Amino acid sequence: MTQFQIELIGMFAAALTTYAFIPQVYKIWKTKVSDGVSLSMYLFMFIGVASWCFYGYLIGSPSVFIANIVAGLLQLMVIYFKIKYK
Amino acid sequence: MTQFQIELIGMFAAALTTYAFIPQVYKIWKTKVSDGVSLSMYLFMFIGVASWCFYGYLIGSPSVFIANIVAGLLQLMVIYFKIKYK
Repeated sequence: MTQFQIELIGMFAAALTTYAFIPQVYKIWKTKVSDGVSLSMYLFMFIGVASWCFYGYLIGSPSVFIANIVAGLLQLMVIYFKIKYK
Repeated sequence: MTQFQIELIGMFAAALTTYAFIPQVYKIWKTKVSDGVSLSMYLFMFIGVASWCFYGYLIGSPSVFIANIVAGLLQLMVIYFKIKYK
């Protein structure tokens, strides 16, 4: 398998795990209710995602690096809504 | 930076993003309420995590591989609760 094909799989994975956060962001934004979402989950996740980003840079993986930048931004939005609508 | 040090950062990131799911699993299990959690988020996430697992295997990254196996199991638990308590 070529490097390009491998990164295609990585980008496919990245698209899914990143897209997975969008319904949650939309749900809280629309309903203004965030009771069902755990703030601690998103805080741990955000620190973890920042570390993944650094790890992706170190091993030279574009998929890991880019995926975690986008995921981190979406998580910041959920954290913002959670604090605003609590 | 040595390979070992890089994997330590990866494992730290893995521990955080994996641990991040535990409060959510615990919250749904304890309250029996899953209204605030988006089922579509967890389904997309699960397929994404399975793809990340394959990607981690292909690039030879123990952190990516192991993290996504554990995360996938936790997500299956949330999906199970979501369907059971809906």
